[in-house]
Amino acid sequence: MDIAKVINGIRVDPASTAPMYLQIANSFMTKIQGNLLPAGTKLPPERELADLLSVSRTTIINAYRLLEERGLIATRIGSGTYVAEMPAADPQTPAMPWEQLFTPRYKSPLSSLLRNLVAAPTANKNISFAAGMPDPLLYPLNVIQEALVGERSSMECAEFGYIATDGYLPLKQSLTAWQSRHGIDTSAEKTLIVSGSQQGLYLIIKAFVEPRDYVIVESPTYLGAIQIFEASGARILCLPQSASLDLELLEDYLIRYRPKLFYTIPTFQNPTGRIMSLRDRQELIRLGARYRLAIVEDDPYGQLYYGQQPPPSLKSLDTYGGVIYLGTFSKILFPALRIGWVNAETAVVNRLSEQKQFIDLHSNNLSQKIIHLCLTEDYLEAHLKTVRRVYRKRRDTAASALRRYCGGHLDFELPEGGFYLWCDVRPPVSPDELLRCAAAEGVTFVPGQAFYVNGAESHQIRLCFVTHDDTLLSEGIRRLGKIFASGAAQRDDQSKMARKPII
Amino acid sequence: MDIAKVINGIRVDPASTAPMYLQIANSFMTKIQGNLLPAGTKLPPERELADLLSVSRTTIINAYRLLEERGLIATRIGSGTYVAEMPAADPQTPAMPWEQLFTPRYKSPLSSLLRNLVAAPTANKNISFAAGMPDPLLYPLNVIQEALVGERSSMECAEFGYIATDGYLPLKQSLTAWQSRHGIDTSAEKTLIVSGSQQGLYLIIKAFVEPRDYVIVESPTYLGAIQIFEASGARILCLPQSASLDLELLEDYLIRYRPKLFYTIPTFQNPTGRIMSLRDRQELIRLGARYRLAIVEDDPYGQLYYGQQPPPSLKSLDTYGGVIYLGTFSKILFPALRIGWVNAETAVVNRLSEQKQFIDLHSNNLSQKIIHLCLTEDYLEAHLKTVRRVYRKRRDTAASALRRYCGGHLDFELPEGGFYLWCDVRPPVSPDELLRCAAAEGVTFVPGQAFYVNGAESHQIRLCFVTHDDTLLSEGIRRLGKIFASGAAQRDDQSKMARKPII
Repeated sequence: MDIAKVINGIRVDPASTAPMYLQIANSFMTKIQGNLLPAGTKLPPERELADLLSVSRTTIINAYRLLEERGLIATRIGSGTYVAEMPAADPQTPAMPWEQLFTPRYKSPLSSLLRNLVAAPTANKNISFAAGMPDPLLYPLNVIQEALVGERSSMECAEFGYIATDGYLPLKQSLTAWQSRHGIDTSAEKTLIVSGSQQGLYLIIKAFVEPRDYVIVESPTYLGAIQIFEASGARILCLPQSASLDLELLEDYLIRYRPKLFYTIPTFQNPTGRIMSLRDRQELIRLGARYRLAIVEDDPYGQLYYGQQPPPSLKSLDTYGGVIYLGTFSKILFPALRIGWVNAETAVVNRLSEQKQFIDLHSNNLSQKIIHLCLTEDYLEAHLKTVRRVYRKRRDTAASALRRYCGGHLDFELPEGGFYLWCDVRPPVSPDELLRCAAAEGVTFVPGQAFYVNGAESHQIRLCFVTHDDTLLSEGIRRLGKIFASGAAQRDDQSKMARKPII
Repeated sequence: MDIAKVINGIRVDPASTAPMYLQIANSFMTKIQGNLLPAGTKLPPERELADLLSVSRTTIINAYRLLEERGLIATRIGSGTYVAEMPAADPQTPAMPWEQLFTPRYKSPLSSLLRNLVAAPTANKNISFAAGMPDPLLYPLNVIQEALVGERSSMECAEFGYIATDGYLPLKQSLTAWQSRHGIDTSAEKTLIVSGSQQGLYLIIKAFVEPRDYVIVESPTYLGAIQIFEASGARILCLPQSASLDLELLEDYLIRYRPKLFYTIPTFQNPTGRIMSLRDRQELIRLGARYRLAIVEDDPYGQLYYGQQPPPSLKSLDTYGGVIYLGTFSKILFPALRIGWVNAETAVVNRLSEQKQFIDLHSNNLSQKIIHLCLTEDYLEAHLKTVRRVYRKRRDTAASALRRYCGGHLDFELPEGGFYLWCDVRPPVSPDELLRCAAAEGVTFVPGQAFYVNGAESHQIRLCFVTHDDTLLSEGIRRLGKIFASGAAQRDDQSKMARKPII
């Protein structure tokens, strides 16, 4: 036995979290599988190896035992320990062909470069206006503590076991009361608690949409919704946004295609910030009733108004039971709780609940309890006043900065609520190109084509103005302005715009 | 205007959580849609109606405004308020045809009667041995408080925003350390945090299994897994459980059908409580390597041993990278957190992560933080010692009670760990029949056919012995014994067993 050859490369790192016996066993495994220690090679006795590696004998005993359990070595009584014979058929185990085993996957139209830029956080000299994230400094963390350990806390053991799939009953009741204050007549039986409104949307699509079914979405619309619809194999009909709802086109779609549903964000739309007028809402309900259209109303920003209250929700105007309302507190409280809810007719809630049970049994109890306490302690109204005030000021700061630094290059309409400024780029430049230049200056945002089906081209960008304080906000926009000032971003002409390959 | 007719049936309930204006508006809406107030009917002036209903004028103003927004009434200046003209095409809005819009749903083989019995909690004179629920009285709720407000608490705002889909990095690192203590060599990059191991299983099936793909499962196996596999449209090959793994049959399946994966619970299997021997695990790994089989190892009970430690996990014996490990603390800590994890090769973790993003963006931060603190504060080991001790005693109590009260009627092998006693019914009686009689006596359990694919018949029942204290445990089993003593459950003969209709 050539001791040197055997122990060459066997390393023990005391700083590693892995126990020493495991490190040693894995080192041996690598050598054996790499054929550096052929079958039949004699290994040193335990005591000898322990001395050589400066570890305890117990460590070697454990390492050898693990290797033996893995079938890589064998002990012959009275003879010693040897590298085991490998089955003749596979001297080297081929790698698992995972890609061949996977089901087809959905490919996002955004190139990976862009995805990385969009995902870059605010850090290391980058200011991100990309993610729709409420300001962490406003998170009411004290509420969590109050909820769980304060005087009003009432953590009972039984509430921390498995609970009903459709949700923690006290929360469904307090949500019902909350909804009724906003004109929505619902009940606990018509409420399903979901793991974020994202899951609500996922469940709705699973319950209604088969491949080749038609659905209608606004254009542009929420990026996450486009991805789920595209991944589902649905055929997506787009309703381009304008000053008012294009009811003629909508009715045409309804007659011609009998779509399964219409997905809309009527209040402070993501990304445009638009509000659907009361009159349009009423007309939409009338059309929906006539054609028995399921309308999915996604409402994450409805409470975040900076001037007058927006028109009542579609759900509160619903006369025929076809509106499925998606609510969440992620943008108002904080995203970490991952709790949202669905208000819909009982048949729909039951169908979604059946689907949800497969996915995660039920949403987590702790978060449900926290939100319930926020609602019943009336904490939410006070908090909302604060965030409305702070975010309104930031909207105005961002608007001023845009006019000052990017005037003539980024056009926008001042949103009356919500998170985003949706800007037209003038003269037209590819948003990708703009993003690359911006990232070099230390500011990022989401390029407009992300919000269109099939990543259709656009000359728009979305800026989230709520996350950072006024100083950082202005600074970020100042950096944006530098790009235009320097003429760094090339003007696109029409021929170049056509079908750029996505790398 | 016939005032009496107009206000007949308009009710206000001060005790209701819904505001009064909303109650009034909805009462009117019901009458209008029910044609009890035809188009053109004049409604009372606001002040008059307020007096009639004994509410404030403001309440009526709000009620009328809501009805007008909903298009149900119209105000003609100088003339008054009238029920609006309905569009000619639909005097009555038909109900939404939800069932026609839904995608096909999965039908559970258990009849709804049985599902209700199985779901009945321990309350109102019923003792349930059905749900696999850890004892709530052992839940370490103080840990939550410690984690969130104690000295070691470190809730930072940023940790409560949106986080990475694959999970809270500190948790992935502490899980890696935890796994390495159990012989599993993994890393943060090979770990995905999921919303309970249920979601882990759901993601795996979405990533690997298309309709008509083959999968292998043990028979019997975990009910929730059967449901997801059946719902996915997979063709399920069953590996009947016996004293040792039927490697011949398994290899036959691998050659003949090239299944996508093999789903197994090798330690304290649900429902049988069996342990796959070390030798069988090694042979399984060898087979897996030869045929490049993906093995899904579900391990919720591995730490709950009552005697000696079970053999090392398949993942720790994995030589070819094909084992996908599913872990959870739901059975050890408490289910409410809804956090589990997957350990697998990076290609698999990435694919599952892409899928998860659509579903719920990321699992909730609070629970991830709590588990991370349990791991790093070394709380878990101490807690495990407690639950092992308590549950072992309960296992023994249950076993004694079974011998005493049901001796000769319920046969079982004493499990060395886990949650369940898997009992053969002698002489053979339909478990449904037994359950109905048992429920009448005030004790419930899960009938055996729930754990077989297609609800194939069985003469077995599963009892969960960990949830209740020894007194309740014995009492529940005593009640079970009464059924056999009274001969209430009919003996099934072979002809009756064949294909009972499921109501």
